[in-house]
Amino acid sequence: MDFFFNPRSVTVVGASDKGPGSFLLGNLQRGYQGKVFPVNPNYQELGGLPCYPSVDAIPEPVDLALLLIPATLAPETLTACVKRGVKGAIIQSAGFAEVGEKGRELSHQALEIARQGGLRLWGPNCMGLVDVPNKRFFTLMQPAITNVVNMPGSISLVVQSGMLSAGFLADLMSRHSIGVAKVCSLGNKLDVDECDVLEFLMADPETKVVAMYLESLKRGRRFIELASVSPKPVVVLKSGVSQAGAKAALSHTASLAGNARLTSNMLAAAGVVQANDFHQMMDMALTLNSYPSLPEGGRAAVITFSGGAGILTCDLLERYGLNLAELSPATKQGLAEIFPPWMPPENPVDLFPAMARMGRVVALEKACEIVMADPEVDLVVFHHLIGVEPKEMDIATLKQRSLETGKPVVFWGLGLEQGVAAFRRQAHENGVPVYGELSRLVECLAQASRWQPEQMGEPISGWTPEEASQGEETVYDEHESKLMLGEAGVPVVEEKTANDVAEALTAAQELGFPVVLKGLAPGVVHKTEMGMVRLNLDDEAKLKAAAREFLDKLAGQGCLLVQRQAKGDFELIVGFMRDAQFGPVIMVGLGGVLAELEPDVVFAPAPLTQNQALALLGRIRNQKLLDGFRGMAPLDRECMAGMLVSLGHLCTEDSSIKQVDLNPVLTCQGQPLAVDASVVSTGPAV
Amino acid sequence: MDFFFNPRSVTVVGASDKGPGSFLLGNLQRGYQGKVFPVNPNYQELGGLPCYPSVDAIPEPVDLALLLIPATLAPETLTACVKRGVKGAIIQSAGFAEVGEKGRELSHQALEIARQGGLRLWGPNCMGLVDVPNKRFFTLMQPAITNVVNMPGSISLVVQSGMLSAGFLADLMSRHSIGVAKVCSLGNKLDVDECDVLEFLMADPETKVVAMYLESLKRGRRFIELASVSPKPVVVLKSGVSQAGAKAALSHTASLAGNARLTSNMLAAAGVVQANDFHQMMDMALTLNSYPSLPEGGRAAVITFSGGAGILTCDLLERYGLNLAELSPATKQGLAEIFPPWMPPENPVDLFPAMARMGRVVALEKACEIVMADPEVDLVVFHHLIGVEPKEMDIATLKQRSLETGKPVVFWGLGLEQGVAAFRRQAHENGVPVYGELSRLVECLAQASRWQPEQMGEPISGWTPEEASQGEETVYDEHESKLMLGEAGVPVVEEKTANDVAEALTAAQELGFPVVLKGLAPGVVHKTEMGMVRLNLDDEAKLKAAAREFLDKLAGQGCLLVQRQAKGDFELIVGFMRDAQFGPVIMVGLGGVLAELEPDVVFAPAPLTQNQALALLGRIRNQKLLDGFRGMAPLDRECMAGMLVSLGHLCTEDSSIKQVDLNPVLTCQGQPLAVDASVVSTGPAV
Repeated sequence: MDFFFNPRSVTVVGASDKGPGSFLLGNLQRGYQGKVFPVNPNYQELGGLPCYPSVDAIPEPVDLALLLIPATLAPETLTACVKRGVKGAIIQSAGFAEVGEKGRELSHQALEIARQGGLRLWGPNCMGLVDVPNKRFFTLMQPAITNVVNMPGSISLVVQSGMLSAGFLADLMSRHSIGVAKVCSLGNKLDVDECDVLEFLMADPETKVVAMYLESLKRGRRFIELASVSPKPVVVLKSGVSQAGAKAALSHTASLAGNARLTSNMLAAAGVVQANDFHQMMDMALTLNSYPSLPEGGRAAVITFSGGAGILTCDLLERYGLNLAELSPATKQGLAEIFPPWMPPENPVDLFPAMARMGRVVALEKACEIVMADPEVDLVVFHHLIGVEPKEMDIATLKQRSLETGKPVVFWGLGLEQGVAAFRRQAHENGVPVYGELSRLVECLAQASRWQPEQMGEPISGWTPEEASQGEETVYDEHESKLMLGEAGVPVVEEKTANDVAEALTAAQELGFPVVLKGLAPGVVHKTEMGMVRLNLDDEAKLKAAAREFLDKLAGQGCLLVQRQAKGDFELIVGFMRDAQFGPVIMVGLGGVLAELEPDVVFAPAPLTQNQALALLGRIRNQKLLDGFRGMAPLDRECMAGMLVSLGHLCTEDSSIKQVDLNPVLTCQGQPLAVDASVVSTGPAV
Repeated sequence: MDFFFNPRSVTVVGASDKGPGSFLLGNLQRGYQGKVFPVNPNYQELGGLPCYPSVDAIPEPVDLALLLIPATLAPETLTACVKRGVKGAIIQSAGFAEVGEKGRELSHQALEIARQGGLRLWGPNCMGLVDVPNKRFFTLMQPAITNVVNMPGSISLVVQSGMLSAGFLADLMSRHSIGVAKVCSLGNKLDVDECDVLEFLMADPETKVVAMYLESLKRGRRFIELASVSPKPVVVLKSGVSQAGAKAALSHTASLAGNARLTSNMLAAAGVVQANDFHQMMDMALTLNSYPSLPEGGRAAVITFSGGAGILTCDLLERYGLNLAELSPATKQGLAEIFPPWMPPENPVDLFPAMARMGRVVALEKACEIVMADPEVDLVVFHHLIGVEPKEMDIATLKQRSLETGKPVVFWGLGLEQGVAAFRRQAHENGVPVYGELSRLVECLAQASRWQPEQMGEPISGWTPEEASQGEETVYDEHESKLMLGEAGVPVVEEKTANDVAEALTAAQELGFPVVLKGLAPGVVHKTEMGMVRLNLDDEAKLKAAAREFLDKLAGQGCLLVQRQAKGDFELIVGFMRDAQFGPVIMVGLGGVLAELEPDVVFAPAPLTQNQALALLGRIRNQKLLDGFRGMAPLDRECMAGMLVSLGHLCTEDSSIKQVDLNPVLTCQGQPLAVDASVVSTGPAV
């Protein structure tokens, strides 16, 4: 991929002296230091450079081709590129897969030519890439935008859409919102996709955080594999989650959007920070760029010009799981010296009276000095009214102090626009984030305090998308399923089959009353709906009656199943499935009817290590239930994790297993026990 | 209250030629047309006006006094004001209740003097008020802020904190974020409180929307009474909901913050739009100012420069309960004429290719013309990349079109900062909202589509905070409680008391097996924990055994209670309590253990009308359960509402009833039935 970002020479096919062809060439000439070869049969010269009639005519080796040509010319141009030894081509034009049959055919041809010729293709239907620190603009963005690109930084941005990447760059750069390293617009992802770019950026020394807006994942499993070992924070905004959104995604980038909950869970399993809007994604990246590791649940000191804003900050810290620091006596004493005598120092530190007393900047700097020295304080949130007073506090000194103490500082800034913009630029150049909305500030801090690469545990195991298994589908009955699962180490309820009333009675006596009786009809998964589940049979008479009834219903088919009656505290549900995008996955969550109303299930790629299984359990929303709610025994998490690990091994080692449902899994004195199970396989019946 | 906003003359006590005293006088002279009398014994003249040594010395009548004086001087100054016939005084200085015992004493004195003298007090510890359209600045805000106040509008802002109101004004005005009518900073609310100001603004012809940041509610019930009859949208951000926040609120404005869930429910019952952050509150107000009534679940057309942004918009519309319009054939045909031939028109309308074909502004204007004529479209969301192209679409024409068709238009704007600011100003002057974040846009539309004054139903009934009832507390037992509730029309389970085994047996036979047996020990509310509840007794032997056991436990005290065994589909919980802030309130929600994990209970002020009770049921989060989930019968909402109405009447007509718990209320074939109940009263036992 390096030839896309660091080519020794570039050709612009479709260069021009007006319109996008001129933007492309002009942008290239803004800062790119290598050789540039414009190609257009209608010009002898462009931008002060000799212009060539075709790629073949270029007299020197070329690394990268920027193509702005009608889709119909793509095959011959790419063929010429291959012949010329070009390593990468960025097709910025549209008119490919997103425009129907003919475009798809052209895409296919282009891809074939590239694959056979060892050429990597970027796009089509994209705006290429921008490298801000190195002033490389391999893009047809308007000059009005590239003109303002003046704030290099270490956040790299991947935006599938072209116009959106241009819009963001304009927005972020003109507001000094964040410093940017690389901006990559991927378009249709015919060849180069989100995985290629993520892998490159993970290794790019100029990138500290990767932020991606993706309308589709082309290689879902590979993406989470990569992200799970990223030493840098990866922030993803994945769209196309709604019905309507998925439809638009299809027509826009000719790509399929996956199931929203599954995708979000897979990203979570890989340690990806997830955003749900554009500026929010940028703000999260900004935060992680400054503070890649914050203490979890960090104790915040709040220094404010307004008691009222301090109160809201307390509310927000609590809502997002951060804590308000309890100031130490020394800090309170220190603050008392700058506060008026009638005001007892508290956190939030309301500095307004101190400012009135000794001047705004002095009060701020003193308070900051005192509060940052407090061992009870992990981070400092400033509320800053900007542009009203002539003098401003010195950010560089504050940053220095932050580095010395290891305590992050962040600003909520409001006030007069020009002043805020200047302050934001200065702060961001010093790596201190400034936010416009308080809740965003707190949300980002909370997010950053959860991102800790060393806690992400083991890498996600690889998987290669396979052809759908061709074997006939076998639905194992409950007893067969449990035998298979039990052997693999999944705890299942004790049970015996019986073919008549006498056998059922013997089984019940061996298991001990009360028991559960089920009727297993071949091919019937939903026994309850057939009326063939009877719980709590506590004497022989009841068991016999039920057994007779079920045998009548079964009419000579199938058999009876007698189970020990388990008494659970609460119900879980566990499952396994194979997803086209993400491969084998395990699901676990709360069971029962009420849990269906507001589903609380989580997914992770299978197989799982014990740590990954524990982390998965930690993502269940209702942790309170697992911890032993209302006198129930807490779930034995190690044991539960072990069950998920066993299930994952069973299902990934036997590739014929398509689907497993364990529903419910009861927790008995904290121990999980599957009391019903169903395995679907494409292999032969055991 | 009119003399605060429209005084015929004003005195500034503590006027000066420097510092806040000069700001106050200077601000007053920016646009106030009435007579101004500076008071300060150290000056002969200030701001070109004669300066008086004291209030007594002012030669003419004075309506309003702006006081910037040490707290210790407040009593004598207010006495002088009363003598001079001043109608309102705004104390902008701090140093009162928020600074401890001495301050509280001064506050008390000040209030007494004002009450006895017929003077209304505003503040202390506030920044007074600003009337933007009429250029009245009764505030000590810095000139740097008042200088930029140049965008009059019809949103009035109430911000308890002084500095925060100043900060907002600076922020909003310098960004042309919204046009503002009045800004009121209330401070400690010693006398004038949120109710006084809300009542004034509800009647103020220059105010169309009221947005309030409140750290406390001084008269909670009165506030929701007022809001429930407001013909204008009221947007409230209420802070102090966290433990830590409540503590800060106490020290800051000497006021107590109420319980968060209760407060939020009370505001919801009154039709108040609730915000949880500052700019979000402003954006909601901005939206409601332009579009006070949007069709609920409105069908949106999205016109975008980026397919990628279109996709995210679809996701967000779905998340916030709005709909994507299905474009009519005529619209698609119209769009096909401006689209390139290879592109089928869809919603979101991706205009980028059409822009490339016929120019950006032309494409935008044509698309807008076509889409707004579509009867399938209720509102139009524009994505707008601003400042990149020289020509911009004409907002006034668009607004005209919006008015003609009755279809709201809103913009998500991104791009070069200066261009965006200019566009925002022009748009806002035309009443077209521009948002910086897509999710905010959609959230605000969704909010506006829910605010419909005509659907708010009946006004909330009044209530006057009373002294805590002095009577001794009586805890009625389950049977007594149900007798009382049943008489009042609350459906309760059929049951009989019994004093011995024989009576219990007779009762069970009359009710029919199976039955529930309970032991009622005097003063014991938690029967289950005493082991004195036995469900599903289905024969005489079991009943007798249980009855004997309970009688032993009761040891001659209390009695047995035999109930018909009700079989419910799901459990609800219903309650009544008296809150110090909001008075009598009714609660209803989901019951059972799982519901405790993620509480789903809602509150409304009692008594309720049938419509109010129905609206309350509509606020339960899990509507799916009430609608008949998984084969359960749907709840009979009219019957359930009737139960809440009856409970409300009973408890408000008998002021001795302190608390009622109906837990659980089972739903049996959709009919609610209280199977356990407890009434606590401060009156004598029946």
